[in-house]
This record gives sequence, structure tokens and C-alpha cells, in this order.
Amino acid sequence: MLELGQKARAAARLVSRAESGAKNAALEAIAAAILADRARLKGENQKDLEAGRQHGLDAALLDRLELTDARIEAMAEGLRQIAALADPVGAISDLDYRPSGIQVGRMRVPLGVIGIIYESRPNVTADAAALCLKSGNACILRGGSEALHSNQAVARCIEQGLEQAGLPANAVQVVATTDRAAVGELLRLQDYVDVIVPRGGKGLIERVTSESRIPVIKHLHGVCHTYIDDQADIDKAVKVAFNAKTQRYGTCNTMETLLVAEGIAAQVLPLLGRQYQDAGVELRGCERSRRILPDIRAAQDADWDEEYLAPILALRIVDDMDAAMEHIDRHGSQHTDVIITESFTRARRFLREVDSSSVMVNASSRFADGFEYGLGAEIGISTDKLHARGPVGLEGLTTLKFIVLGDGHIRS
Amino acid sequence: MLELGQKARAAARLVSRAESGAKNAALEAIAAAILADRARLKGENQKDLEAGRQHGLDAALLDRLELTDARIEAMAEGLRQIAALADPVGAISDLDYRPSGIQVGRMRVPLGVIGIIYESRPNVTADAAALCLKSGNACILRGGSEALHSNQAVARCIEQGLEQAGLPANAVQVVATTDRAAVGELLRLQDYVDVIVPRGGKGLIERVTSESRIPVIKHLHGVCHTYIDDQADIDKAVKVAFNAKTQRYGTCNTMETLLVAEGIAAQVLPLLGRQYQDAGVELRGCERSRRILPDIRAAQDADWDEEYLAPILALRIVDDMDAAMEHIDRHGSQHTDVIITESFTRARRFLREVDSSSVMVNASSRFADGFEYGLGAEIGISTDKLHARGPVGLEGLTTLKFIVLGDGHIRS
Repeated sequence: MLELGQKARAAARLVSRAESGAKNAALEAIAAAILADRARLKGENQKDLEAGRQHGLDAALLDRLELTDARIEAMAEGLRQIAALADPVGAISDLDYRPSGIQVGRMRVPLGVIGIIYESRPNVTADAAALCLKSGNACILRGGSEALHSNQAVARCIEQGLEQAGLPANAVQVVATTDRAAVGELLRLQDYVDVIVPRGGKGLIERVTSESRIPVIKHLHGVCHTYIDDQADIDKAVKVAFNAKTQRYGTCNTMETLLVAEGIAAQVLPLLGRQYQDAGVELRGCERSRRILPDIRAAQDADWDEEYLAPILALRIVDDMDAAMEHIDRHGSQHTDVIITESFTRARRFLREVDSSSVMVNASSRFADGFEYGLGAEIGISTDKLHARGPVGLEGLTTLKFIVLGDGHIRS
Repeated sequence: MLELGQKARAAARLVSRAESGAKNAALEAIAAAILADRARLKGENQKDLEAGRQHGLDAALLDRLELTDARIEAMAEGLRQIAALADPVGAISDLDYRPSGIQVGRMRVPLGVIGIIYESRPNVTADAAALCLKSGNACILRGGSEALHSNQAVARCIEQGLEQAGLPANAVQVVATTDRAAVGELLRLQDYVDVIVPRGGKGLIERVTSESRIPVIKHLHGVCHTYIDDQADIDKAVKVAFNAKTQRYGTCNTMETLLVAEGIAAQVLPLLGRQYQDAGVELRGCERSRRILPDIRAAQDADWDEEYLAPILALRIVDDMDAAMEHIDRHGSQHTDVIITESFTRARRFLREVDSSSVMVNASSRFADGFEYGLGAEIGISTDKLHARGPVGLEGLTTLKFIVLGDGHIRS
């Protein structure tokens, strides 16, 4: 791993200076190589799938692991989309004259070397490599052992594309070992790696956070709330609350708890209850809510903190917006929280006072992602506060340095 | 410490929502209290000075510890200057419509609770408290044991000012114990403290970095370079290189190594050598430089990595700008590095390619601080890459969350 780190550091210097044209050419060449190598990719992927079946991976994991034609095409298309994004590197902002006569501004620059640790899906290899490359960073990618052959096959395409574009092949290194100790070594390469991005389950994130000597951009979990205020428009409330839960169950921006103001509960809950029931969503409600929907299961204390990632929804009636914000503050994970209201004053307060990476008015929490926000692809959604909060795209993989222009200026 | 953390978290909620007017009123009230309490401050400071003398603190430390009338006035003036800065909290930027019809923007928000661990100078107590308060954060301040009485006296003034302005007194808590274990406890309060800022010597920073379970904004050290290019204007080169070393010796933005292009060394070094000699600066030169200045001491390998903080300067002749950048890359601390050149093309390359928190052309590295950059007071100078790089002012104590405005929008 030390050697990987040293090579990455050396490559980082070169890609940080690479022109946009060269980086885009590499991304296009990688996309072309992936399409041209389709048969080999599927062959290598087959090895992973067979090994997975032998090791008894469940059907959902096997499905995520599989590289179909459609997924291979999507992978290439993803690379081209990243090529089409604006290059953030080198942009100078806020360049102003100071009273001393010097000009002071800020230049956006790459972070350096990014270590990414991820699980199962082989398309992450192409995605993550492309985001790091476009933002001028070198990266070390450590995928899951289930996808070893697939990831190595993608790695060959990346190498080929980099070389075609005259960029250093070491700008993207995919770790070829499945040894778990390699992760520990990567997390201690603080002299060569500038930031670690773990992408995977809670167990992985917690291991990385506790072991890493390198700053981590992490995404812990999403316990997202929708609060239906008593000044909500009922149609919008039903539409948004239904979408936030049911549009996809397994994503971190899916609503897990619905909070409803006492004053509107009797109007809105019967409508919503029926829709959830038809969609097969299990409701777990507080005592007050069960007076309106008597057939639903009683919520336990633990339900308020649960990220179900499943067709289950916790439901609580609260006195007012302050009680809702208190609930969110205590039980939320600072990911994405929503108010449905027509009240300007409450919307204004909710936006300011709720301390989450995304705070929304009258919109589904499912919008909280990089594409919907216009960032392009994302490397993850950060639930940290420092550096990057919410969806992390190209900009989150860069930082700002100060630049100073003078004409022989000295400090007196 | 746990109780301090809980109180800080509760206070953070309130100060994050406080209006600028209330925060400014508190800062003015604290300044007034400090001036009114001048006698008591000096009395308590006297206790620290006596204890310091008994424990054999050296003269420099005792001097830094002393609260004179001028320093008390400067402390009050510093508070007023922070009151006069623009409030960063709540500012909304980049609010744009997306194709889906939602509006997405970013709102600047406080980090939450900031823990600051610092040494000796009691004015840091007022400074740090003011920056945290103005940026809407609560803070826990842990000063050095040498300044215990002085810090507690300043803490009383802060408490008084906060209460006068109707803000929670727990928004600023100054740890009253000198127990070293308290620092360790603070560093493990990850549920209550969002970021740790250590201000002090290398030993402190290293302890904090290795023990902390909380993200750290740290300032490690400044090995700053000035490179005199062979296309430099000789007058500017001499003026800037002299100022960068001699304007103050003990600061992190002071030049520690001077790099000179071979092609201009014979012209510039005799002039500079004489000036440094007159100022009592000891030069430690490479072999080539000693052919031009035969009387100077030979540099050892270790000199290239040294932060002298003293009238000593390492001196090296390099072939060209690439060799200079290679030296900076290997030996620098990514703090502040300067090129002196009239070449547009070299200036452009140096600005882009040198990976330091401040990169300058034709200006003294001594300009690298928050006041000179127009940030107002600074909480420190970060040598980290994530979140904040270079001087950290109010903005560095905040972060951005996403806000989304819709009208019943759902994701399809």
C-alpha cells in the first residue's frame, strides 16, 4: 500500500496541472474502452458472480454485482456526463485589491490524493475514478472482494484511457488485493492520502471513521423527516409525503418519519393512510395518531431513530412546528428534512433553524441528490459538517487556496 | 466536561438563531465590561504572573502572559472590530431553479460547538469567544494553566456581556480547571463538539490531532519560501526577501528558506547578504551560495525543513523555477510560498502549481494573515486542506447547507 501511496502522490502532481481538454479526452477514452471491452468485462464479472453464488451471496447483492449490457452502457454514459461538466480546477474568485495594494483572491485546487473504499457495485469504480480525475485528484480505489475481477477489468479500461490521453496511469489505482488488512494500511497513509471517502454500509463507515488517521468525508445514515404543518396545503402535503416515502425505499433521502401537526392530522392522515396502505407501507404510529388510524401498529421508542430503508414509516402527531423541530433535532441524522406549509414565516424559520445538510419547503426529500441539485454525479452525500455537507460533487473534491499578487509589496 | 458539552450544545441552538444585532450588542457589552473591569483583570493577571515567576517561566512567556493597559484596550478594540464585520450566518447563495422546477441554493450556517485549546496569551480568550459568537457558534475555551486567573477574569466579562444582550451565558464557557485530563475529555466529546481548534506549539497540535475523535482545524507549522527567479526585478527581490525574513521573526508566515535562481544569484545575493548581516540574520547556505557569500555558514540537510522562528535563514541556489518548486514540494509545509519574477508565464505557473495555502507573486509572505486578507480577525491559519485552508476567519467557522424551495414538487 505504501508504494501505491507514493505513486498516487507523484501522479497527483501531474493531474492537478492537467488541462481540462486532456482530462476530458481521458474520460472519453475510458468510456470508449469500456464499450469496446464489453465482452471481457462481462466475462470477468461472471467470475465474480459465480464466486458470489458459491459463497451464498443473497439475490439482491448478486443483482447489484451484475454487469449487464445496459449497466455497461450506463457506466460509459456516466463518464461522458462527467467529461461534459465544467472543470472546477484553477477557477479564481474574489480577487480584490486590499488597502495595502496587494490583490488577494482564492483559487480552487484539487485535494490531492483521495482514497475511496466501497462495496459491491463495479460501476462505482468508473464513477469514482472519473470524479476524482475531473477534479484534478489522483485516487486509490478499494472495492469489495465480491467484485474483485470486475473492478480489475474496469481498472484496465481506465488505465488504457489515461495512457491514450497522455495522463499518468497511476492517477487511478485500483487495489488488486482483497486482504482486509489493506484497508487498515490505506487508512494510515496520512503522508500520501489527503482524504478518505467510504461508500457502503454503517459497519464500513464506522470502521473507517474509528481507524482512519486521514480526514474522512462520510455519509452515516439518513433518518429524514417530513413535517406537515397545520398551514399546509392538503393536496401538496399528501402528494409530497407519499412520494418521499414510496418513490424508492432503499435510498438515504427517503422519508423515515412523518410528523403531522395536531391541527391538520384529522384531515390529512386518513387520506395518506389509505395511500400508504395501498402501496403496502407499514405505519408505526404514536398514540395520538392511532386515534385517527386505529388499525396501525404502535410505534416503539426505537422507531423514531430508525433508518428503515424499507416500506415502513414512523408516524407522529406533534403540537406545532416547534415540537416538530425538537423531534428532528433529537432523532434526525441531519440529512434531509422537509416542511410542508403555506406559511411564509414558518417556512423562513424552518429553513434557518433546522440543522440538516438539506432543508426543504414543499418538496420531496427524494430530491436530495447531486443530479437533482445540478452538481452532476456525486461521490456521496456527506452528513459531516466540515468541508462538504450534503451531496458531494466535483467541488467537494476540491479546496480553495489563497493567491496574492503584488508589485514588490512589503508589510510595514 | 460532559456537562459543559451539553450546555454548549443547548446554547449553540440559541446563538445560531440570534440576530446580528443581538450578537453585536453582546460584543460591545463585553468590550465595555473589559474596559470597566480593567483593575480586576490586572489583579487576576498579577496572580498568574507571580505563579509563573515561581514556576520559572522564561521572560518571553511572562511577557506574553502580561495584561498591560495597552493590551486590555487592544482586547476591547478587537471585540469591536469583530462586531463591525459582516455577519456570515444565514446568507443564501446560488439559489437557482432546476429543470424539475425546485429552487436549490445554499445557506451559510454555524458549525455548532467549537472547542478551542490554546496557550498562554489571555487575549485569545476574548478573541476566540468573539469570533465564535459572531459566527453563531457556541464555544468551549480551554486556555493554558499559566493564564488560569486571567482567563477566568475575562470569562466573567464575557458572561456579563452575553447576559446584557439577552444571549445565553453558556454560549462561551471557559474551562476552570487546569487538569490536563480535561483536554483529553474535551477531545472525546464528539456528540457535543463539532470541531476542535488547537492554538499553540507543535506538541499541543500533535497531541490534539492524535487524540481527538472530533474533526480538527489545525495549524501545524510554517516553513515558508521565497524564490527569486532569474527574471526578477532586483530591487523588488531585495525588498521583499528582506521584509519576509526580518519584519517579524516569530510568526508562521516568516520566510525560513530563500531560494535563488542560479542566473541572478551573483547580482542579488551580495546585496541581500549585506542587509541580512546588518540586521543580524544568520545565513546558512548551500555550497553554490557559499561561493558568492564565502563567509556564511554551511547549511545542513536538516536546515531545509526547519521552522527557525528566529533570525536565521536557510539559503539555496537552484537551477530554475522547476527546481525551486521541487524544493518547496519536498521541504515546504504548504503554508505560504512566494515567487519574485517579472515573467507573466512563470507567475501564472507558480500560482497554479505550488500547493500551499497561500501562493504569492512579488509580495512578502508576511501578508498571509486574516487582517491583511480582509477577513478580519482570524482564529488561526490552517495548514489542512479540508474545509479551511490558510487564515481562518468568520467564514471558516461556518459551513453551507442546501436549501430547497418547492410548491408540492415530487420526484418522478
